[in-house]
Amino acid sequence: MAANFEDVAKQFVNFYYQQFDTDRKQLAALYRDQSMLTFESSAVLGTNAIVEKLSALPFQQVKHQVATLDAQPGVNGGVLVLVTGQLLVDEEQRPMNYTQTFQLMPESGSFFVFNDIFKLVYG
Amino acid sequence: MAANFEDVAKQFVNFYYQQFDTDRKQLAALYRDQSMLTFESSAVLGTNAIVEKLSALPFQQVKHQVATLDAQPGVNGGVLVLVTGQLLVDEEQRPMNYTQTFQLMPESGSFFVFNDIFKLVYG
Repeated sequence: MAANFEDVAKQFVNFYYQQFDTDRKQLAALYRDQSMLTFESSAVLGTNAIVEKLSALPFQQVKHQVATLDAQPGVNGGVLVLVTGQLLVDEEQRPMNYTQTFQLMPESGSFFVFNDIFKLVYG
Repeated sequence: MAANFEDVAKQFVNFYYQQFDTDRKQLAALYRDQSMLTFESSAVLGTNAIVEKLSALPFQQVKHQVATLDAQPGVNGGVLVLVTGQLLVDEEQRPMNYTQTFQLMPESGSFFVFNDIFKLVYG
């Protein structure tokens, strides 16, 4: 049964941030060699470079809190997702606002991340 | 000469908000029947419905100020864009933070908007 794009988006986002906040190296399984991550305007291509980038981020503890999630059917059976939320790192008491967009693409009954752009939002 | 995805993104974003802030009905030219707009979590499909939605937004004067723009090469020659910025409407003195993602797709040497998701960001 074909999954509804909204269900795909919700399941992906739940899994992604749970994994990110627990052991972000394991996010490797969600990327492919043609995947791209732009994190705070620094862009890397491919699973290895993406995991290296995520691992090198300068915090140990991190907690994402999703505030809003919107999704649309994308090109070629993909799903486009836009998240807004808040991020708490290490001993910091003030959460930071962020936004993140994902282009998910279908593969063998599941989805991988083709595009991933993360950006902090300053008020 | 093939356009660089970052140039495409910048030119598109400049044009889009200039047009939006001047006469948003004319954004019709950027959408197609398969295009989708999700504006504050309300989704519409196709040029006519999108222009109707944009025209019905409850403000006369609007000014977008782009703070950040990130882009990546997308699926099938597309370009994925993530914008953060501030929005000032009518007589309101306090700008609102927003984020917006566009999936642009190539067509006859130009690009149209396949996906468009707009969301206000509350701190």
